[in-house]
Amino acid sequence: MIVKAIERVGDKIRLLDQTRLPSEEIYRDYDDYKEVIEAIKRLEVRGAPAIGISAAYALALAVGQTGDTSRANIVKLAEEIKAARPTAVNLSWAIDRILEKVNKSFSGKPEDILQLIWSEAAAIHEEDRLMCRRIGEFGADLFKSGDSILTHCNTGALATGGIGTALGVIYTCHQQGKNIHVYADETRPLLQGARLTAWELKKAGIRVTLLTDNMAGMLMRQGKISQVIVGADRITKNGDTANKIGTYSVAVLAKVHGIPFYVAAPMSTFDRTTETGDEIEIEQRSPAEVTRLFGTPIAPEGIEVFSPAFDVTPDELITAFITDEGIKPGGRKE
Amino acid sequence: MIVKAIERVGDKIRLLDQTRLPSEEIYRDYDDYKEVIEAIKRLEVRGAPAIGISAAYALALAVGQTGDTSRANIVKLAEEIKAARPTAVNLSWAIDRILEKVNKSFSGKPEDILQLIWSEAAAIHEEDRLMCRRIGEFGADLFKSGDSILTHCNTGALATGGIGTALGVIYTCHQQGKNIHVYADETRPLLQGARLTAWELKKAGIRVTLLTDNMAGMLMRQGKISQVIVGADRITKNGDTANKIGTYSVAVLAKVHGIPFYVAAPMSTFDRTTETGDEIEIEQRSPAEVTRLFGTPIAPEGIEVFSPAFDVTPDELITAFITDEGIKPGGRKE
Repeated sequence: MIVKAIERVGDKIRLLDQTRLPSEEIYRDYDDYKEVIEAIKRLEVRGAPAIGISAAYALALAVGQTGDTSRANIVKLAEEIKAARPTAVNLSWAIDRILEKVNKSFSGKPEDILQLIWSEAAAIHEEDRLMCRRIGEFGADLFKSGDSILTHCNTGALATGGIGTALGVIYTCHQQGKNIHVYADETRPLLQGARLTAWELKKAGIRVTLLTDNMAGMLMRQGKISQVIVGADRITKNGDTANKIGTYSVAVLAKVHGIPFYVAAPMSTFDRTTETGDEIEIEQRSPAEVTRLFGTPIAPEGIEVFSPAFDVTPDELITAFITDEGIKPGGRKE
Repeated sequence: MIVKAIERVGDKIRLLDQTRLPSEEIYRDYDDYKEVIEAIKRLEVRGAPAIGISAAYALALAVGQTGDTSRANIVKLAEEIKAARPTAVNLSWAIDRILEKVNKSFSGKPEDILQLIWSEAAAIHEEDRLMCRRIGEFGADLFKSGDSILTHCNTGALATGGIGTALGVIYTCHQQGKNIHVYADETRPLLQGARLTAWELKKAGIRVTLLTDNMAGMLMRQGKISQVIVGADRITKNGDTANKIGTYSVAVLAKVHGIPFYVAAPMSTFDRTTETGDEIEIEQRSPAEVTRLFGTPIAPEGIEVFSPAFDVTPDELITAFITDEGIKPGGRKE
């Protein structure tokens, strides 16, 4: 069974509390938008597409709760929801998309406006679900029964409104009856691979083996990996790909060992305003993510930490991009 | 100040409790050999050379405590100490070396025999100290002020009877007044880099920056690493080197980025009975080392885990070996 991170159940929104994974699987039904905002802030829901979808539903809940479909009220609620995670691009995008739709139809009756917001939120969700499905179907053609696929971070059902991007390809292979084995990097510092990817694949009945990030090279040398597949945060015009820290090292190791390296991402991840990865500024995360684990200090107090949020994999290390519009070749030449 | 993991203080043995690092720096003086055995079992002292030295001192304490210098008693105590960590090669080696010395001089008076055991234990400690010193001095010639050196795991004062092997080179550079900056891989799963290497270098006043293992590639690509230096568990006849898991990935990344990769180890680490790394059997560690952190589960219950204790870096990725007899070229051709 593929898990659902977000589900609309009548006029409520059901979210899986990802902060409790992998120990506990707790779903909560929300009918109060303020609680959804809190859930977004507390990272109960995470992954760019999943955050956008939750925010869209939160706006529908909010307008329904306040019973006020005036433009002023909707804009005020929209701003309140956007503030939950101000840097989450998908969140602003989803809310702005609904506002635009509402603006175009503002002559409608109050109940029509509320209905419009619910429909648009559901459309955002459904489009994401279909986008995952298309990526999965295009990508699955690249894999066959018996493959052992390495992945990094979490790009699955827990991060999206559907079956995910890189993991969407894996789920699709599984649904097609292909016998595949996934190796999941634990993905320090936040351990999304260990906590989330391993959990959702196991739940779906897919064989998954967990490893620490520094074990991937040895696995490749032993011939145990047939392909690598990862997601992407941003892809620049020349194909350079920003993704979770550690992706670049995996890409280098894949090339050295002659293992195909695939990036699975929707066309919306392709940023046509940025020429190359060199233009992407890489922010540093909080040192505490590296020096503490669940509150326990694992490094000396006050130690200097290097902790970039992501890295950039140059196009020449990428075999192909798996998008919702098909497979696009990367710059890697064997 | 370079920390001392083991020190003889009169007729007592002072050990730094490494299980409490990096939060607490606790030294304990032992005059009861059974407590030293417990300290070895509980990993208060770790690192192959440090375990051997502690065991040697424990035998001296034991013979003194029991007041019985008969061959039968010494052999019995030796077996008891060896059982503390049956797979620790340095432990058996140190104990057997003392037994051999005792056997050759068995006509001595009881107090002479006890004295002999203390002397031999001190000699083992002193030889290790000098060995570290020599590695440090040979190695330091390869580094200059301004270098930024990446290391993996812990191979320093906490693991040996002296200043360490790879870290011994770094300490020697520092003592020579070279301004160096160390980047320390945290070294999953047991986090020796975060808990131990970062701690001992910081204490010695050497600039150290901690990173998760998967960040090393990006650092290299950014031009921030000038050399890599690591230790070794075993080096086969052709130069293939078994060392802490993750070393191989670092070696591949170093080669791809044109960064020298050095292995620092005493000549005793060179195993003349093994032709190549392919002959080395790699055991798997307990899955719990990967799936739990300080008791907290970070992965789903019962998940399959790949957790090799070490990996093998082929000679062709090694620029040079830094030994206590000088620098020996590795097989890497730029």
